[in-house]
Amino acid sequence: MTLDVSFITLGVANVAAATEFYKAMGMTPHDRSNEHITFFDLGGRIFALFDRAALAEDASQVDEHAGGFGGSTLACNVRTTGEVQTMLDRAIAAGGTLLRAPSEPPWGGLRGYFADIDGHPWEVVWNPGCTIDDAGRISF
Amino acid sequence: MTLDVSFITLGVANVAAATEFYKAMGMTPHDRSNEHITFFDLGGRIFALFDRAALAEDASQVDEHAGGFGGSTLACNVRTTGEVQTMLDRAIAAGGTLLRAPSEPPWGGLRGYFADIDGHPWEVVWNPGCTIDDAGRISF
Repeated sequence: MTLDVSFITLGVANVAAATEFYKAMGMTPHDRSNEHITFFDLGGRIFALFDRAALAEDASQVDEHAGGFGGSTLACNVRTTGEVQTMLDRAIAAGGTLLRAPSEPPWGGLRGYFADIDGHPWEVVWNPGCTIDDAGRISF
Repeated sequence: MTLDVSFITLGVANVAAATEFYKAMGMTPHDRSNEHITFFDLGGRIFALFDRAALAEDASQVDEHAGGFGGSTLACNVRTTGEVQTMLDRAIAAGGTLLRAPSEPPWGGLRGYFADIDGHPWEVVWNPGCTIDDAGRISF
């Protein structure tokens, strides 16, 4: 199991306004987008727009206004619930910091967060609605 | 021409130390990495580690310590030099802000930067050493 980038999520002030910006840039929102979050499928990696405060809150222990949270997160989707803890343990062993222990978010699945040694937040997430191919690309 | 994510670059305090962290997480640096920057090939999208201050400087007009720069950038590689300006123009027309007009960075090619409507910096770059397939995946 290797850390991989599954999602690139930007924290934004207004999801609808940010979505219009990226549509104007040529991107097409994924059908699974909703009023809270917009997804763009980049061929098996997902670019997402999410409320900045909600994103900071979801990552926990990350101060929205501090240097540690730059308004974006990376996410690595894993194939089983157990891999969430395993990946967090690996990050901590490598010198990272636990930001949020595995728990179920309001939208289901299981996710935890760690910060790398520079404070960049990474989500490790098991989402039953996503499949991951051998190349690490996700379908959802 | 559609905006796409080619690089995900984290600004880090120490490239060597950050590289060790991500190696411990299972990633293998790309052969083209050097002392200044580490690349990891995510199957046609590149995850990179670069000096935080240098990354902020490269993006220009982005204050390293302000909320507008969270220590990471997204980059969209384009196929021709002309597309750099075209993409910047499109971003400005969509409500984005020009951060750096197209110019040649020390490592060659041509790049400019814009900020999206939330201040997230995007690099638009033509790199003669990269090829981009029809799915927007880069090889380098």
